[in-house]
Amino acid sequence: MTLNLDADFLQRRPANHRPLTPLNFLLRAADVFPDRVAIIHGQERRTWRQYAHRCRQLASALMRSGIRRGEAVAILAPNTPAMLEAHFGVPMAGALLNTLNIRLDAAAIAFILTHCEAKVFLVDKEFSGVARAALAQMETKPLVIDIEDALGEGGERIGQYTYEEFIQQGRTEDPIYWPEDEFEAITLNYTSGTTGNPKGVLYHHRGAYLIALGQLLHHKMDADSVYLWTLPMFHCNGWCFSWAVAAVGGTHVCLRKVVADQIFEAIETHGVTHLCGAPTVLGMLIDSAAGAGRTLTRPVAVMTAGAAPPAAVLKETEALGFRVRHVYGSTELHSVTTLCDWHREWDHLPPDERSRKMARQGVRTAVTDAMIVADPITLEPVPHNGAAIGEVMFRGSIGMKGYLKNPAATEEAFAGGWYHTGDLAVVHEDGYIEIKDRSKDIIISGGENISSIEIEDVLFKHPAVSYAAVIAMKNERWGERPCAFVELKPGFAGGVTEKELLEFCRAALAKFKVPDRVILGPIERTATGKVQKFKLRQLVQDSEQNT
Amino acid sequence: MTLNLDADFLQRRPANHRPLTPLNFLLRAADVFPDRVAIIHGQERRTWRQYAHRCRQLASALMRSGIRRGEAVAILAPNTPAMLEAHFGVPMAGALLNTLNIRLDAAAIAFILTHCEAKVFLVDKEFSGVARAALAQMETKPLVIDIEDALGEGGERIGQYTYEEFIQQGRTEDPIYWPEDEFEAITLNYTSGTTGNPKGVLYHHRGAYLIALGQLLHHKMDADSVYLWTLPMFHCNGWCFSWAVAAVGGTHVCLRKVVADQIFEAIETHGVTHLCGAPTVLGMLIDSAAGAGRTLTRPVAVMTAGAAPPAAVLKETEALGFRVRHVYGSTELHSVTTLCDWHREWDHLPPDERSRKMARQGVRTAVTDAMIVADPITLEPVPHNGAAIGEVMFRGSIGMKGYLKNPAATEEAFAGGWYHTGDLAVVHEDGYIEIKDRSKDIIISGGENISSIEIEDVLFKHPAVSYAAVIAMKNERWGERPCAFVELKPGFAGGVTEKELLEFCRAALAKFKVPDRVILGPIERTATGKVQKFKLRQLVQDSEQNT
Repeated sequence: MTLNLDADFLQRRPANHRPLTPLNFLLRAADVFPDRVAIIHGQERRTWRQYAHRCRQLASALMRSGIRRGEAVAILAPNTPAMLEAHFGVPMAGALLNTLNIRLDAAAIAFILTHCEAKVFLVDKEFSGVARAALAQMETKPLVIDIEDALGEGGERIGQYTYEEFIQQGRTEDPIYWPEDEFEAITLNYTSGTTGNPKGVLYHHRGAYLIALGQLLHHKMDADSVYLWTLPMFHCNGWCFSWAVAAVGGTHVCLRKVVADQIFEAIETHGVTHLCGAPTVLGMLIDSAAGAGRTLTRPVAVMTAGAAPPAAVLKETEALGFRVRHVYGSTELHSVTTLCDWHREWDHLPPDERSRKMARQGVRTAVTDAMIVADPITLEPVPHNGAAIGEVMFRGSIGMKGYLKNPAATEEAFAGGWYHTGDLAVVHEDGYIEIKDRSKDIIISGGENISSIEIEDVLFKHPAVSYAAVIAMKNERWGERPCAFVELKPGFAGGVTEKELLEFCRAALAKFKVPDRVILGPIERTATGKVQKFKLRQLVQDSEQNT
Repeated sequence: MTLNLDADFLQRRPANHRPLTPLNFLLRAADVFPDRVAIIHGQERRTWRQYAHRCRQLASALMRSGIRRGEAVAILAPNTPAMLEAHFGVPMAGALLNTLNIRLDAAAIAFILTHCEAKVFLVDKEFSGVARAALAQMETKPLVIDIEDALGEGGERIGQYTYEEFIQQGRTEDPIYWPEDEFEAITLNYTSGTTGNPKGVLYHHRGAYLIALGQLLHHKMDADSVYLWTLPMFHCNGWCFSWAVAAVGGTHVCLRKVVADQIFEAIETHGVTHLCGAPTVLGMLIDSAAGAGRTLTRPVAVMTAGAAPPAAVLKETEALGFRVRHVYGSTELHSVTTLCDWHREWDHLPPDERSRKMARQGVRTAVTDAMIVADPITLEPVPHNGAAIGEVMFRGSIGMKGYLKNPAATEEAFAGGWYHTGDLAVVHEDGYIEIKDRSKDIIISGGENISSIEIEDVLFKHPAVSYAAVIAMKNERWGERPCAFVELKPGFAGGVTEKELLEFCRAALAKFKVPDRVILGPIERTATGKVQKFKLRQLVQDSEQNT
């Protein structure tokens, strides 16, 4: 005889089981901190009461306009109050929020809007040109709404309403939608699509809620935190900070453009405590500060990811007064799933060693159930020796629902019961992982693996180098050989030659890892600071054919 | 046509859905901080690796001894390493952890062990006397295991094994149990039972996980946090800090006895950053510090609840260097569900006003879905005017599964889809709640409600008063009238009369609220610092009959 713990009266019921959803965070912030500033945007200030009020207006206006549960509402906007409102207002209507990368071209926007059958399209006027061109390519057009942001510059009206006209149609007393199941979709994030068409990643309420709590926990945020929007909100919903800040009742500081002067000004004016950004953002801050002789008056916590930040960048950013935390994740995992959780014993290491510790992607967060670095086929984990390379894989409640309308890609991503990131890493003896490459970016030369990141790290240490990207180029004898693209810092162009950089690599790398070529010039990056290596590979291939 | 977001390939699967469980916190801490101190107990130190290792040993030993999923393992012990191990080791065996109040008498222990059909009973040797007496009253006896704690004093061996002998039978390579469903029971906590037999509250993995994250978030804990065990772990699993500390890889400091000298010593020796305690613990710290002229060298965060702490106690504790946060909850809600979330604007209020703000139970936490203060029958919420009284009710994932073997009490507790706390509160204009009484402790005099807490608050302000408890006594003319029990501070006994205390009340209270009687003498409290008012009512009734 055992206890009956599964008796009917011990099952889930409304009093002891409600869906986990970030929507609750906004309602709580409006209850607890109604008069505290929730959003700063230029001269504008919105309290949590006002913010929640406007989200309810948006939700009601959407429902009254005929939007039904699970239909997509797309938005093309920089990090503005309207973008923050969409993160709550759209799911409060039961709709699916699709945030579009503002750097996409018309064809890509048209593809996405058509793929997700968007019923409403919110467009910041700055982007009305590309939006109009996209709409012209579409057969079925959504309802278009113009966001006229006070700090926006130029742009035509292309919509049936302005955003303000539209939300005035909403009634805050209308009931809001509440998910019946926490696994319901909340947002739709298209991957940048380094190959083929973009894939639409479906986020669920449960994952968004858990990642938001994890971010707050690991980055020590509270009601006094002031979060600056240097990370695009269209990227993984701003690593879920779009929702997380509400859970503690902190303050959002919007930012239309990621420009160093504006970042430093916002930090000092608004007492910014936290921001996120790709290593390129860190690089920009360093360059700007070096020119202006700046340091911060108070420390600012910075979460960085996107690519492994080179040790040199990490070190300089810390010297400025930023406290850097290295995090890692992917769009398919609701953003951040590992961090280089810091050991206080490391505080006293020499700067270079500290940077090496910090450059690692680290360990799973408190809300990430499980991570392995393993053979992608056999799922056999690699030894913790800092040398053996395997694919980084995750499982747990932070995994996406799947790719919209794409069962084949979904099954492939989840093969063997784990989400396959496509990133290759080693595991150090202390269990911390370090990404060595994207699986498709590894260079196989004479049967040996060469990590493009290792070569990039060396190049970044050269004082003249502002950015570096290394790719594989075809070679008859070795199969593949490394080729480095290098962007020089302003003032150094012309002063440093390819030969000098190759010498610099020879002094630091095993001979077989030294690139065969160095190509100087600007390197194109995506909105999230990622290099699209397939484009560089194409460039090299074209240039080889021309010679 | 709408998007198919419910397609088969978008449903839950192991890669994107795993049960939320605090067990994951321990595995992560052992991975991330293997060599960091997890537990301090006297001279003993255990790292997270060692802690996790011993929990796995315990789990394996339980399974090898024949424990099956859902069977109860009871423990009678103070805040020791074995108690911390039981919090992970028992659920890792799939068993149900039942922590027993160490102040219970043999009859109550026998009742509980019989009621939950305990298969294993872990007993700290200090409590072997009462345990043996309890076992003598039971027909079916569990396997008894003696915990021989290095800091324990005396006590006979009554078990088949010592705890160390028992866990040596376990193998850490044995697989551990993992819940299939996060709503499975994890622990069983018996309420102190102010009326009738104790009720067994079933906690689930999901609730324990969420409350643990909420505690960390609101009390700003991280890997550098050092948590001192002044709150009994048998009380709501130590407000879920037994699990929460693992989620950040902080440090537990055990404490067998809550004695002021040992608390102050532990704080200074181990750099304690956080502790919890009933207002009586705060009172003890104040009394001790006043005698020894102590203050803290570093601030310590203190979470207090159990009863509304009088303003005077809060003020003095802050002056010592403790940063007090007032929290509230109940056993049926996995512990803490509200806190007096602090507004930085309040920092600059005069001390008395700050204390009044802080004495409120406040607002729901970030992980508490919904709270209302309402009419218990109609569920109509009371206006936010600081005067209208309603019952505090909660709903959401923090609610218990229910009461073991007690469907009637479960249905009553969850009537109307809300958990009824039995506490009466007002809601202030800013939405913060303030408990005025237990529903059964309110005094109804001539049709007017008199809050026993309001009178107690006044009495606590008298410099000679160490503790006060006010109850209703029957009165022919008015129905009920207040009667105050007062315990004086050491040194004041005999120096203050009932009459003086009544005069003191008259100066501060409306005439009808002034007690008819003041009774001087020691006041009996439970292990968690609660007064059992039904016993005081009985005392008065008996004394009235004798006069």
